[in-house]
Amino acid sequence: MTVINGYEQSDREQKLTILNLPSLEAAAKKIIPSGGFGYISGGSEDEWTLKQNTMAFNHVQIVPRALTDMEQPSTQTQAFGIDLKTPIMMAPAAAQGLAHARGEAATAEGMAQVGALMAQSTYSSTSIADTAAAGKGAPQFFQLYMSKDWDFNQSLLDEAVKAGAKAIILTVDATVDGYREADIINNFQFPIPMANLTKFSEGDGKGKGIMEIYAAAAQKISPADVRRITEYTNLPVIVKGIQSPEDALLAIGAGAQGIYVSNHGGRQLNGGPASFDVLHEIAQAVNGRVPIIFDSGVRRGSHVFKALANGADLVALARPIIYGLALGGAQGVASVVSHLNDELLIDMQLAGTKTIEDVKRAKLLR
Amino acid sequence: MTVINGYEQSDREQKLTILNLPSLEAAAKKIIPSGGFGYISGGSEDEWTLKQNTMAFNHVQIVPRALTDMEQPSTQTQAFGIDLKTPIMMAPAAAQGLAHARGEAATAEGMAQVGALMAQSTYSSTSIADTAAAGKGAPQFFQLYMSKDWDFNQSLLDEAVKAGAKAIILTVDATVDGYREADIINNFQFPIPMANLTKFSEGDGKGKGIMEIYAAAAQKISPADVRRITEYTNLPVIVKGIQSPEDALLAIGAGAQGIYVSNHGGRQLNGGPASFDVLHEIAQAVNGRVPIIFDSGVRRGSHVFKALANGADLVALARPIIYGLALGGAQGVASVVSHLNDELLIDMQLAGTKTIEDVKRAKLLR
Amino acid sequence: MTVINGYEQSDREQKLTILNLPSLEAAAKKIIPSGGFGYISGGSEDEWTLKQNTMAFNHVQIVPRALTDMEQPSTQTQAFGIDLKTPIMMAPAAAQGLAHARGEAATAEGMAQVGALMAQSTYSSTSIADTAAAGKGAPQFFQLYMSKDWDFNQSLLDEAVKAGAKAIILTVDATVDGYREADIINNFQFPIPMANLTKFSEGDGKGKGIMEIYAAAAQKISPADVRRITEYTNLPVIVKGIQSPEDALLAIGAGAQGIYVSNHGGRQLNGGPASFDVLHEIAQAVNGRVPIIFDSGVRRGSHVFKALANGADLVALARPIIYGLALGGAQGVASVVSHLNDELLIDMQLAGTKTIEDVKRAKLLR
Amino acid sequence: MTVINGYEQSDREQKLTILNLPSLEAAAKKIIPSGGFGYISGGSEDEWTLKQNTMAFNHVQIVPRALTDMEQPSTQTQAFGIDLKTPIMMAPAAAQGLAHARGEAATAEGMAQVGALMAQSTYSSTSIADTAAAGKGAPQFFQLYMSKDWDFNQSLLDEAVKAGAKAIILTVDATVDGYREADIINNFQFPIPMANLTKFSEGDGKGKGIMEIYAAAAQKISPADVRRITEYTNLPVIVKGIQSPEDALLAIGAGAQGIYVSNHGGRQLNGGPASFDVLHEIAQAVNGRVPIIFDSGVRRGSHVFKALANGADLVALARPIIYGLALGGAQGVASVVSHLNDELLIDMQLAGTKTIEDVKRAKLLR
Repeated sequence: MTVINGYEQSDREQKLTILNLPSLEAAAKKIIPSGGFGYISGGSEDEWTLKQNTMAFNHVQIVPRALTDMEQPSTQTQAFGIDLKTPIMMAPAAAQGLAHARGEAATAEGMAQVGALMAQSTYSSTSIADTAAAGKGAPQFFQLYMSKDWDFNQSLLDEAVKAGAKAIILTVDATVDGYREADIINNFQFPIPMANLTKFSEGDGKGKGIMEIYAAAAQKISPADVRRITEYTNLPVIVKGIQSPEDALLAIGAGAQGIYVSNHGGRQLNGGPASFDVLHEIAQAVNGRVPIIFDSGVRRGSHVFKALANGADLVALARPIIYGLALGGAQGVASVVSHLNDELLIDMQLAGTKTIEDVKRAKLLR
Repeated sequence: MTVINGYEQSDREQKLTILNLPSLEAAAKKIIPSGGFGYISGGSEDEWTLKQNTMAFNHVQIVPRALTDMEQPSTQTQAFGIDLKTPIMMAPAAAQGLAHARGEAATAEGMAQVGALMAQSTYSSTSIADTAAAGKGAPQFFQLYMSKDWDFNQSLLDEAVKAGAKAIILTVDATVDGYREADIINNFQFPIPMANLTKFSEGDGKGKGIMEIYAAAAQKISPADVRRITEYTNLPVIVKGIQSPEDALLAIGAGAQGIYVSNHGGRQLNGGPASFDVLHEIAQAVNGRVPIIFDSGVRRGSHVFKALANGADLVALARPIIYGLALGGAQGVASVVSHLNDELLIDMQLAGTKTIEDVKRAKLLR
Repeated sequence: MTVINGYEQSDREQKLTILNLPSLEAAAKKIIPSGGFGYISGGSEDEWTLKQNTMAFNHVQIVPRALTDMEQPSTQTQAFGIDLKTPIMMAPAAAQGLAHARGEAATAEGMAQVGALMAQSTYSSTSIADTAAAGKGAPQFFQLYMSKDWDFNQSLLDEAVKAGAKAIILTVDATVDGYREADIINNFQFPIPMANLTKFSEGDGKGKGIMEIYAAAAQKISPADVRRITEYTNLPVIVKGIQSPEDALLAIGAGAQGIYVSNHGGRQLNGGPASFDVLHEIAQAVNGRVPIIFDSGVRRGSHVFKALANGADLVALARPIIYGLALGGAQGVASVVSHLNDELLIDMQLAGTKTIEDVKRAKLLR
Repeated sequence: MTVINGYEQSDREQKLTILNLPSLEAAAKKIIPSGGFGYISGGSEDEWTLKQNTMAFNHVQIVPRALTDMEQPSTQTQAFGIDLKTPIMMAPAAAQGLAHARGEAATAEGMAQVGALMAQSTYSSTSIADTAAAGKGAPQFFQLYMSKDWDFNQSLLDEAVKAGAKAIILTVDATVDGYREADIINNFQFPIPMANLTKFSEGDGKGKGIMEIYAAAAQKISPADVRRITEYTNLPVIVKGIQSPEDALLAIGAGAQGIYVSNHGGRQLNGGPASFDVLHEIAQAVNGRVPIIFDSGVRRGSHVFKALANGADLVALARPIIYGLALGGAQGVASVVSHLNDELLIDMQLAGTKTIEDVKRAKLLR
């Protein structure tokens, strides 16, 4: 255990025996301090949208198929020109030092171990360079919370390019933070510096609440900002936080080369739809112009399958992976993704889908 | 604590730290005597409609919007020619002396502190004049339970005009009181006089049950009564208790200058629809002819947002504000409205709606 | 308390203070022996249909109406040429001696006290003549379980005519008894003779299970049986146990002068629809040709209202009235009906319906 | 009690007094060792599909019918040219030695006692010959898990023919085993040999997990395999595990003479539909070309009725029968089927359906 500013960080490093992802939460709660756990696990207001995110997968069903003359399905896929062993990827969650002393570095290492894509948050506990190094050349995306300070944005993008990021994820759904009651109950302040904020005039984030952190970020984001960032960088820009066909088209019109359908894991606008419930309509509007990443509520192989069959090209999740990080460091992260991928493989076989492309074409029952 | 006729009234005066409005009920229950608490919190029969009132907000979802180039949303609005800092207003609930020794006077003071509209009930514990004075010039509406005694009605309307009321809310859904089981279980009698009833031949309401109080009111109300009141007063008359397009049109035809969609907080006809579920259809029938006030079940910023987006111009609530009154007097009232408004502001930013007019135009998912 | 064959019968006689009908069950359970209580309260199989019977009333909502220029609604109505103070009537439930020593005689007396219609079962604990006498001239219907022995049927019909019955209710949905698990768990045998069976060759019913009792009745019932009975008696014949438009039309075609929509209170075919859910379609098929009686699941004034608005002319219930019988004898019966009628009157006023005819024309929301 | 490899097998032999099938699970849990009980009772992942299997029967309702001029309904039926006393049959569940020392032999004996069809699994604890002998000439089907080793398949088919099997059920939905968490929690290994696997090069199954067992089976199954088997044997081949019209037609195209609609009791693809919810559409596609067997979730007579009315010709179940086997051996098996058939007979009478053919024509409400 590592203690930083009075906060007790896990420093476990071990493979995990995983029954299923939902069961990780209770285990992780025992070793993540309550403030950090509340920040990671909580949603906004009464968490209706958070709960719907997972329940909504039951709104459609996978058709079991037989007589399909297949075996040994594979989760290998390609997206954004990158070859991946699985469509499961890490969502760019902030402040993973809350879960483990090695933070995003361990997450990146674990994702690389299983050939899965890592995405790092602007508000990560470890720096872009350190996270990249830990991934040892495995593909990573960098997520940008656009600052009011354009120089800072450029500086981060420059660092990301230098570190070899394959794409920029621009988050646009957090212009103010959702009303997260767990953080208020815990009077939560970040105990651990955010490495990328040290250049920031306002400090490194330590000792601030999420409201203050977000306040330093731009609250006013328009298609022009998307265009400006796409023009500044040669990397593909993926716009994250899309929940409507209209915003997807605005983003693509502004030069976005990827759409990231997410409601921020139910942490932003409560009373909005389950992210899964809007995926299909958005995918129809996007119509294959750019790849789609999906997150919010994914806990089972069948959820990954349903998201892919409903229009996603990659499926991200964060909380269960962060719990794996707390419980087992890089190996814990790898264990979680590996387990989820195993569930997906079973579902693929039983649905008669040999490849991820087959899954994308699978019919769902409504 | 003030004791009147053996009833213990709160006399707290303090700002409240509020996590959310639903949590106020348990706290208020500890300090409001059980008879009073049952009267305030209860609904009719098995409270199906009361519960549906709040659950029905989940029948629609707010679409999170991004790339909207906005920040610093404002809840300022105008209705009935009045400038308000928020569309949230006090519903004209009776007998607030049950919750606090200062009754409606403190409520009016608290609403004024946050620039929100106060509405006072005929059955208020404090008089029209006292309530008005406590509001220090802030806008107030006066709610009329029409008496069988027309002179009494005129006398109340005259007092309301004299006290500066900006509009008259005529309640038409309480021609008999709903079957409220909590009052029966508690054998509830009003322990505190109703200030406006002292002129009433039947007495001041003290020691009577709600059934007796209502019995003194007119049970037979027709469009002609609405016309008569609109013709007697120069104030706009808003008809409260509308749950159907037909009644909305009848009221407007009779001269109503506002429609108040409400099922009396689930206290009247149980087995009727959630008030929110009929709002949209009524708003379509009203078609902008007059403003619409909505109440029944509002507990969250997202509920206010959804009511506005579904056709309301102002959104009222009573129970949570009365709980705030019990817990903190005028400052408690202000704390509740302020908190709810803060939740609304977050929702507005995340839905890309800078003004209340934008909220009214927002699309909801069904 | 009266003890008969070891079975302890209530002999209470008192007015009841009733909060609501659902609360009577727990009180009655304390004084009705477990075998009798299981027989009265239970349904078939896992009681899905029994539970749906009451829940289904929430499938529609009453529209609260205002500005209706009415007061003092009245539940007076006329059906089958009989003037009644209320559309609420007693369903012809068997073996009421299980609940009270005076059995159906007390029920008839209580129903008469409140001007409500009594219906007596073939399997009643008291005889046709005694039940009729207890009603002191108030209208009663006689319910016939058709025996395999036609002479017995004629004998019962003759007795009913002699006792002044106003109509015959022919039950056609109990050609075998439903799979009632409570009776099996309790190994329930009727401890009390069934007065009308004493002429029956097989005995008086005492010491038999419901399966044996029904076995003596005809299992094979056709429209020809309906015709035969309508031709034998000058009384109107009402066919009870109808759950489909087809059967309603068959019954009317065979001479039925009333249709009784019922699923036997969820005691017969489990896995069938809630009785309320099929009422509207049946009423449309009947199209006013004959009056409709409805039962199954009625517990609230709003249920009575909804049944009337959906096509019923009279609304019957049994269990809550039998609980009232156990708790207060004839006065208990009167208390239950009176309370339910009071709830109905509140609903009528709040829905703007002055008469039962108005209720029948009221629009329900779906 | 018999102890084999440390596993305690029931050797009870007695008639059971059965209240209902769902109640058997708790009783059986007390006498089946936890590993075996978990294997028998469990489903895959979070068992959503398993639970839906039974809940889905509530999606339709049986219309109670009266005036149908019938009595003494009969469950006698004919399918695949075989006369049966009931449409209820045993599903070909594996490894019944987990529940009882006599395993499938006792099951076959019990099914024969009540004139119901037995189906034996490839993975049975007793051999084809022993199971057949125990049935004493009563009709049996043999279920084939197709091995990668074609000689082994032929050998099993030859044995089945020799033993007098009336049809072959070819399971095609278990090309990999579902993610069954109970087995993982229990680290379950089969403690008892699988009699038909002794010729298998890989051994007799003892001490292996279900994953290993399935791994020896073919994972790649195509219509060509169905054709090959239909061409090899003169017996009708029924394809089991069909959940879509497409697969039903593929199977029939390949020579299948029966379709077995099943999702393996919720043990394979979780997140798929309830088996009952897809039955109707499949039956429409099959359009009477071949008979349909249905299983998954059947626990009540009304479930059997609904499955028949929705297109099934025979209705199978396994878990409750296996619980009966554990609790009472062959007589326990007979007791379970007999009880379920009794419930069905009641439902038939109350729905006015004298024969199984009438049930198949019955209208269901949706």
